Amino acid sequence: MNVTVGRRTRHYRTVAFDARKNAIQLIEQRLLPHRFEIARMTDFRETAWAIKEMVVRGAGAIGATAAYGLAQGARAFHGRDLARFCSHVEKAQHTLQAARPTAVDPINAMIEVRRAMSVGGTIEEQQALALAAAEEFADNDVKHCKAIGRHGEPLIRDGMKILTHCNAGWLAFVDVGTATAPLYAAQAQGKRIHVFCDETRPRSQGATLTAWELAQQHISHAIIADSAAGHLMQRGEIDLVIVGSDRVLGRTGEVANKIGTYTKAVLAERHRIPFYVAIPFSTIDWKLSSGRDIPIEEREESEVLGVWGIISNPHSPIRNPKSRSRAYVRVANSTSRARNPGFDVTPPELITGIITPGGIIKPSELWNHRGKLGYEE
Amino acid sequence: MNVTVGRRTRHYRTVAFDARKNAIQLIEQRLLPHRFEIARMTDFRETAWAIKEMVVRGAGAIGATAAYGLAQGARAFHGRDLARFCSHVEKAQHTLQAARPTAVDPINAMIEVRRAMSVGGTIEEQQALALAAAEEFADNDVKHCKAIGRHGEPLIRDGMKILTHCNAGWLAFVDVGTATAPLYAAQAQGKRIHVFCDETRPRSQGATLTAWELAQQHISHAIIADSAAGHLMQRGEIDLVIVGSDRVLGRTGEVANKIGTYTKAVLAERHRIPFYVAIPFSTIDWKLSSGRDIPIEEREESEVLGVWGIISNPHSPIRNPKSRSRAYVRVANSTSRARNPGFDVTPPELITGIITPGGIIKPSELWNHRGKLGYEE
Repeated sequence: MNVTVGRRTRHYRTVAFDARKNAIQLIEQRLLPHRFEIARMTDFRETAWAIKEMVVRGAGAIGATAAYGLAQGARAFHGRDLARFCSHVEKAQHTLQAARPTAVDPINAMIEVRRAMSVGGTIEEQQALALAAAEEFADNDVKHCKAIGRHGEPLIRDGMKILTHCNAGWLAFVDVGTATAPLYAAQAQGKRIHVFCDETRPRSQGATLTAWELAQQHISHAIIADSAAGHLMQRGEIDLVIVGSDRVLGRTGEVANKIGTYTKAVLAERHRIPFYVAIPFSTIDWKLSSGRDIPIEEREESEVLGVWGIISNPHSPIRNPKSRSRAYVRVANSTSRARNPGFDVTPPELITGIITPGGIIKPSELWNHRGKLGYEE
Repeated sequence: MNVTVGRRTRHYRTVAFDARKNAIQLIEQRLLPHRFEIARMTDFRETAWAIKEMVVRGAGAIGATAAYGLAQGARAFHGRDLARFCSHVEKAQHTLQAARPTAVDPINAMIEVRRAMSVGGTIEEQQALALAAAEEFADNDVKHCKAIGRHGEPLIRDGMKILTHCNAGWLAFVDVGTATAPLYAAQAQGKRIHVFCDETRPRSQGATLTAWELAQQHISHAIIADSAAGHLMQRGEIDLVIVGSDRVLGRTGEVANKIGTYTKAVLAERHRIPFYVAIPFSTIDWKLSSGRDIPIEEREESEVLGVWGIISNPHSPIRNPKSRSRAYVRVANSTSRARNPGFDVTPPELITGIITPGGIIKPSELWNHRGKLGYEE
């Protein structure tokens, strides 16, 4: 999407490849929203480090980064020995996969790249096929997000106020995003919308990433405390909720997403506000048969006990982004402990529809539509 | 309640009076939870400043502070002219009331002090009566909170896990608190309990004040993000919810309290978890006939866009409390705006009972019990 730095507005993808220099260009997400920088990874080991350290995060974005990283590794091989080339590629794949072992997108992305390479006869052919496959993976990610936007856009009427939680925006994918895709599509249609961004404690992705995205795209928005949505719904100030997901169970329609999503679904049901979940095909888990089997990561207590930000004056935010450095402040006393479940599971009866690149489907109907949703036996 | 500083454990009230020095002693709440200090106010103007600057906050605590402040002002008068004494007392009352103009407790507390003074014939008598009335107001606050504890305690079974939101603890009253009173009473009965403290963004009163209180009282507890309670309820980890209130409508049973309270009530209903509101009589508003008439304060955006805390290392909180100073960190980008409603209104059908000093009453039954709940025509 477009990013304005100083007076210059340019289109960026979250992940891009510079073929001439064999380098991966990533938006340095750890610095957002206070600084916008492009980090260049010139070696597959650096690329793995960037995944591990969350320079890049989000399902689609790390999938594309791993695909490019494998192509980058393959293209860096100099020599004529095919066996040594293969073992070099294996090593790169292993290194990239180990950077975020629980994520499924890098694994699937690299399987696609390897499959494409396998038809090449020579090292040079395989190197070219690897890059073409990585580019195709990234382009497909963008296509799928755009399709989500097309399917979701008609849900949005002119003047609507829409709530979203966490960040399922373009920063989490190669471009466009999932939960944000219908918003950007509605804006492109000239519809006036206003978005409420849940702050999304404890990691504040709504306040840091989603609000930054919407500001860059000039979409009217306001950040709210996670506790405020119920009150706004009571007062009729929210017309629609759209969120992303980390895992949707294809067999049951249950949706795992950032902690707090379930609460918003319960509130939306009480107030008869439509609640949609936007996902690419790769988010659907066709194996698990109960949401209770989804492991809920218990994260670091320090995330709840304090907050990361930049030291500032509450009444006059610092203007010079170069002088900004991030700091952690402890909010709680030094002995109290915290509980920090990272995700929750929303049951299908609270979800109006799942917006996929193949159309909007009721959560209970996913299994019946598995053919067009990328299900493989 | 008891506070441990270093190796020394002592009982403190949130507000106390030193008659010999005509000084009010307040727990400096702006420094909590990182530093425990007693601030001494030696003049009614200083006392008004302490109310205004939130050195002391919470309905019961500021009521008692204003009562003591008025006695302090009366006792500081030197002279024989009764008319001048009266105008001096008027001035003190006006100054103290102007410190927090929307709060009802200081007004009512000072009316009681004035009423008590009016039977005194001499300046000296009136001065003595003022102090006695202020002491009585503070003692009654404690008695009422203890009565809430007695009535609420039987709701708590051994081993229960209890959720609370914001701070309705002893720091908000003279001692014991309201939502916390049943917890302290259950602890005194030897019941083992565990308390989940909602962080309570944007001002973090759960993380800063309630968690500190519970830590001082050695009650097992954990701070959670405001978004996490729904997930914990789904997993059967919450047995009971107790919160305080800023205003309960005696005619309808609607409850205004810190933003996010309504959300917890909706979740509790879905999971069939009892939801109680603990209040002294003074919190009941007998006039308003609809929750929609309760003004909902829209607070500063900076509260949502950032957080106050002390600069720290997330993995090794600073040990030396003397070196701690509070800092504000901005979490959001510098252009995004926020919405910040401070309170919400919970309808009576979501509330299991109101725990008052006169017993537990269904919210819809408050009006029928108005005789024993302090209703005055």
